[in-house]
Amino acid sequence: MHNLYAFTGVDSGDWRVLSVDPIRGEPLGAVRAVDVAPAQGIAPARPGSWTLYGQMSNLRYAARTELAALRARQEPLGRPLALRAAMIPIKKSAAWWNLAQDERRAIFEELSHHTAIGLEYLPAVARQLYHSRDLGEPFDFITWFEYAPDDAEAFERLLARLRATSEWSFVEREVDVRLERRT
Amino acid sequence: MHNLYAFTGVDSGDWRVLSVDPIRGEPLGAVRAVDVAPAQGIAPARPGSWTLYGQMSNLRYAARTELAALRARQEPLGRPLALRAAMIPIKKSAAWWNLAQDERRAIFEELSHHTAIGLEYLPAVARQLYHSRDLGEPFDFITWFEYAPDDAEAFERLLARLRATSEWSFVEREVDVRLERRT
Repeated sequence: MHNLYAFTGVDSGDWRVLSVDPIRGEPLGAVRAVDVAPAQGIAPARPGSWTLYGQMSNLRYAARTELAALRARQEPLGRPLALRAAMIPIKKSAAWWNLAQDERRAIFEELSHHTAIGLEYLPAVARQLYHSRDLGEPFDFITWFEYAPDDAEAFERLLARLRATSEWSFVEREVDVRLERRT
Repeated sequence: MHNLYAFTGVDSGDWRVLSVDPIRGEPLGAVRAVDVAPAQGIAPARPGSWTLYGQMSNLRYAARTELAALRARQEPLGRPLALRAAMIPIKKSAAWWNLAQDERRAIFEELSHHTAIGLEYLPAVARQLYHSRDLGEPFDFITWFEYAPDDAEAFERLLARLRATSEWSFVEREVDVRLERRT
């Protein structure tokens, strides 16, 4: 398995849980912290907790100009000032996955401006997408955002704008986990 | 792991090996047969043999009209008359994976007519793509074709046309394994 990461609900870890909100569909169990670590393979979760898996991979929709803008402006995870994180696992509907590439792209960008909206919040909000669907996971993606406390309000506006898009009408399960880095 | 398949070189199996030709890059070891089976996870290969893994997933480039044409005309694997198969694992270059989605799509279809060429050989040549790159495999894809002996020449023309495309200039490793179904 390549670029595989495990996100595990734990009692104590680098990322302390501030809240776990089920936005749509089945919730995730409450945990006190989330541990994020590279994984070699998929293992059963411990009783009473959960582990979600995802893989870093190539972007599926970004066009050349968008990719160039992202690469020029985005910052990596792990910045010292980025003490807040949001882990938002998402599952899209069968209707989404039955669409052709051009239809998904049109909804993702031409209609929903997913990349264009995200670019407005760079470099403040660092972002990493982990792919889960081909792993047979309960979610299709784990989205991970990191930002400084001063940028928390901007991050809420980013999220609100994305959730209001046409693309989000294909989201059938979403949980919003907010985290604070242990310092 | 979801829709994961293992392709294993064996001494005896449902698909007898007719030939193993290294087209580009490092070859695969000679084996007498190939076993194709659903897999739960990735396991080390037996000494002296090889196992390649791949996953069925959604198509990454097909536009709506192409997807509709494929769905209307393609036939499934396992047809009784399809006694021949070709297993062609392929690895593309880092340059390919650094391209944006629109650039890959333009090379794949507008320039190379990958889907359009494949459609000309439907329903005679059944095809299934297995994705391997995100598994950390030595190849990015395993392409699998099945056809009747009477369609073998048509299949050679299909392959020759695909290999002559711009897309193929990004292929840095390719092995061509031909198989005959045990009857």
